[in-house]
Amino acid sequence: MLFVSKDPVVSRSTLKRLPLYLHLLEALLAQGVECVSSTQLAREFNFNPTQVRKDLEVTGEVGKARVGFRVAGLVVRIRDFLGWNSTHDAVLVGVGNMGKALLGYKDFEKYGLNIVAAFDKDVRKVGATTFDREVLPLAQLPKFIKRTKVHIGILTVPAREAQPVVDLMLAAGIKAIWNFAPAPLRIPAGVILENARLTQSLAVLTSHLTHQN
Amino acid sequence: MLFVSKDPVVSRSTLKRLPLYLHLLEALLAQGVECVSSTQLAREFNFNPTQVRKDLEVTGEVGKARVGFRVAGLVVRIRDFLGWNSTHDAVLVGVGNMGKALLGYKDFEKYGLNIVAAFDKDVRKVGATTFDREVLPLAQLPKFIKRTKVHIGILTVPAREAQPVVDLMLAAGIKAIWNFAPAPLRIPAGVILENARLTQSLAVLTSHLTHQN
Repeated sequence: MLFVSKDPVVSRSTLKRLPLYLHLLEALLAQGVECVSSTQLAREFNFNPTQVRKDLEVTGEVGKARVGFRVAGLVVRIRDFLGWNSTHDAVLVGVGNMGKALLGYKDFEKYGLNIVAAFDKDVRKVGATTFDREVLPLAQLPKFIKRTKVHIGILTVPAREAQPVVDLMLAAGIKAIWNFAPAPLRIPAGVILENARLTQSLAVLTSHLTHQN
Repeated sequence: MLFVSKDPVVSRSTLKRLPLYLHLLEALLAQGVECVSSTQLAREFNFNPTQVRKDLEVTGEVGKARVGFRVAGLVVRIRDFLGWNSTHDAVLVGVGNMGKALLGYKDFEKYGLNIVAAFDKDVRKVGATTFDREVLPLAQLPKFIKRTKVHIGILTVPAREAQPVVDLMLAAGIKAIWNFAPAPLRIPAGVILENARLTQSLAVLTSHLTHQN
């Protein structure tokens, strides 16, 4: 929620719809479909076709009249735009259940996210291997970040431990934080913060279920 | 993204900010803080104070001039509004890493979410116990939903398996779906769909990191 877009032209909503188009386009590609129109895409997601065209415009891919977009071309452009054709190295701090789920999520490779190391302050977790990565002691985090010049820090610690870990990350040179802890974080301007909060998503679900009855 | 609010007065954005206030208020309560103003809350999250006041209005809790809100009262009201003081039973389908992370997420109790059973189509997973819940065969899902009258279905299967499982859930009487699969779902009007998509959150992060450089 503290996230401030640096590029006012591309909205957060557009950024969040692009992966949806991409997933569908990749499925179409696998089925051998060559072209798709923005109207078809809009129908699939129940979106407004004008919205879909505006969203796809940011990628630079141009559709043709009566034919639509080349599926293969659009896939490459969306992936380029999202930065998913490059590799982004990341460190993860907090090897609880959520941390383990992320370490074991093989699809991250497809999105260029490469979790190179995991850290925990719990000495009982340190040294264990979780999905091919050794869990390192939290004390080694700053040196590791400085040495490897990794840019992304993934935060899967309890809320009360979030800010101190973020401060460690920032001091060592982390530029972007993917936060799974339910805590408001203080970060300086210029650092990217993206909150992936399950409880926010759950709130939408349960409140509607509650007010429906 | 296919989610349509049934109550146009309370926006999705407000619903997603309420858990943030709640987490902070519960921390303040634990510290013995009795009152808090909307201005203080706004400062903490870097939100507009008017926005904060409008958000809190939906809960029905009224702040007092110069004193602000009673922290304890506001906590109860927000939890009531989100439906987190009631218990919502749920079934989970797909015991992969994400499924396991959700099964092991103890904090769900605090939000009234109670995952009563887990299902998987993989016979090798069936029968195993994951975080105190036995994994049942997918074939038993419809009968289980009908018998227990559970309302929430949590979907942690791969994208290509999502729609068939959703169809099973809906036919058996599920009213709300929490979807972790990166697939567009076809659901009838009146069913609540909330997508908790990691890749959308990741897209915001990596695209900004990419365009910053």
